[in-house]
Amino acid sequence: MTPKKTIGIVGGGQLGRMSALAAARLGLNCVIYTPESGSPASQVCDQTVVAPYDDAVSLKRFASMVDVITYEFENIPVETIEILKQEKPVYPDSNLLDISQDRISEKSFLNDIGIPTARWVKVEDEEKLHATLEEWESEACIIKTCRFGYDGKGQIKYNKSQKLSVAIENLHGDLIAEEIVDFSDELSVITARDYGKNIVSYGPMLNIHKNHILHKTITPAPFAQDIADQAIEMAEKLAEKLDLTGLLTLELFLTRDGRLLANEIAPRTHNSGHWSIDACAVSQFENHIRAVAGQPVAPPAPICPSEMLNLIGDDINTIDRYLTQSGACVHLYGKDSAKPGRKMGHITFLNPTNED
Amino acid sequence: MTPKKTIGIVGGGQLGRMSALAAARLGLNCVIYTPESGSPASQVCDQTVVAPYDDAVSLKRFASMVDVITYEFENIPVETIEILKQEKPVYPDSNLLDISQDRISEKSFLNDIGIPTARWVKVEDEEKLHATLEEWESEACIIKTCRFGYDGKGQIKYNKSQKLSVAIENLHGDLIAEEIVDFSDELSVITARDYGKNIVSYGPMLNIHKNHILHKTITPAPFAQDIADQAIEMAEKLAEKLDLTGLLTLELFLTRDGRLLANEIAPRTHNSGHWSIDACAVSQFENHIRAVAGQPVAPPAPICPSEMLNLIGDDINTIDRYLTQSGACVHLYGKDSAKPGRKMGHITFLNPTNED
Repeated sequence: MTPKKTIGIVGGGQLGRMSALAAARLGLNCVIYTPESGSPASQVCDQTVVAPYDDAVSLKRFASMVDVITYEFENIPVETIEILKQEKPVYPDSNLLDISQDRISEKSFLNDIGIPTARWVKVEDEEKLHATLEEWESEACIIKTCRFGYDGKGQIKYNKSQKLSVAIENLHGDLIAEEIVDFSDELSVITARDYGKNIVSYGPMLNIHKNHILHKTITPAPFAQDIADQAIEMAEKLAEKLDLTGLLTLELFLTRDGRLLANEIAPRTHNSGHWSIDACAVSQFENHIRAVAGQPVAPPAPICPSEMLNLIGDDINTIDRYLTQSGACVHLYGKDSAKPGRKMGHITFLNPTNED
Repeated sequence: MTPKKTIGIVGGGQLGRMSALAAARLGLNCVIYTPESGSPASQVCDQTVVAPYDDAVSLKRFASMVDVITYEFENIPVETIEILKQEKPVYPDSNLLDISQDRISEKSFLNDIGIPTARWVKVEDEEKLHATLEEWESEACIIKTCRFGYDGKGQIKYNKSQKLSVAIENLHGDLIAEEIVDFSDELSVITARDYGKNIVSYGPMLNIHKNHILHKTITPAPFAQDIADQAIEMAEKLAEKLDLTGLLTLELFLTRDGRLLANEIAPRTHNSGHWSIDACAVSQFENHIRAVAGQPVAPPAPICPSEMLNLIGDDINTIDRYLTQSGACVHLYGKDSAKPGRKMGHITFLNPTNED
């Protein structure tokens, strides 16, 4: 019998909640660390430490309660993980967190291991940026904050005719300028890798966004086999080069001229993998927990086509129509108020028809 | 948005655990009431009341923490439920508990509504029992305790040649004698019914026992359509006659001469429905929680054939072979020690092959 471990999860959101639910299937207990009381993840665990991310005493207490630690979102201070690492093993290693928290280190790492991205440059001054745009033969680009951006936050479209200092006045910290990519599709691959270097992947998934937030995920994605193979190869190469123990997500663009470009690394489970709870033998959350807990990862083994629909903000009011629909799997995250843009839940339609 | 309710679950075993996990999918919180600390169900909930079933003060405190109450096993004192009913609604109603806790009231109820069982008689004395056996043209019968039997406990095979008083010396309370049925198969149907009288059913499932404990459940069961229809009809009739709000299980025998006989009612989710977590859009646990929480039940919508294998006692040591098997869904219940006969977990094989 695999020794029973208690897993510490840093972060209390829905990804932590669904990871804790997956751990429970495997008979494992979780302890949540979150600054927020009554968090979605805390609701499904019998122990939570509620304290700020920089509270070293509470972090050490949390570490003493668990055997191994993971995190459920990327915007956790690396210092938090450094404190925890002194007490207990943390997976994925903070090298992944470090790389994925900064767009420049992320894209440098990807490019260095031969994974293409859209062209990019660090924003230094207007003159240099305009020179780059000329080199790219483009009038415009996307400017993003290097750190702490998500769901379209912390980015603008910049046109050469604008004064740079005015355009970026609401963007803080280091900035990166990215080539505007003429893409036909957005896709993602989720890869888990265990202590024994076994690797499994989900996808690629076809992702449809609305207002920069994931709206729908379709599996299997209708891509040509060579594109699908290439996408998986990229994510698995990334996992290997990082010597990953845990799970990561690679978001990609498919350009209209048929090239795959990496967009972002998420050092964690991903919204585009939620379908795997209902349509696979082993979900992304379970493989995450397995890898972290020192258990072998398992083949996802998808059993049917699926479509995942996010419930954002007031979408939650449409829930009744799905509750009795055959093949609809309803997931709600235990959040009390439906703020605009807030992820409240999702529906996975199994064997979806056009009406879903 | 359906108003969010907190559900109280009386009992802390694996059925409560899996019900709480199903509630969590729907964004609902559970509070567990159990005499045992660190119970399987408590591990996945942020609140548990640990107290004996006859502690009225604790029961009232528990009721004050929740909106609605259910129970996860049938051997809860009816008095416990009576105390709770004064505070908050309890589903299924205690009439079901009452009927199913006593084999005589159970069989009488079934027979009264036209659902056949094996012939039975209350055990009074040796003379009367022998007269009944003569009427049945049989040398032997099964004698069972009327109350608190499970997994083959509290029953013996009795032969006319034995002295009755000696044969039954370890059986306590009222006893029932049942005809020995020449059955080819054991099967079950699980039925959920909501406040709006909508009804859904799982099965029939084919169940294979070892040492009186469920060993395997196979779906879809290889029965002729008319047998399957009849089985479902019986379970749904039972639910309707009880005016059920909640979920129940009807265990049946299929005799070698093609008759369906009801064996037992379980007023709860059932081991033979565990496959529904992985192979259905909506599991038995979710439909139980929905009905109890005042939400509509949903079509189970099975997506593939499955085979469920119980892990009893030391079977848990075989877990490694299943962890990486494609299509195997591993479920462990968070129990620390593997006593003989103790249900430690189960595996659901999706699209099973003959090797599973």
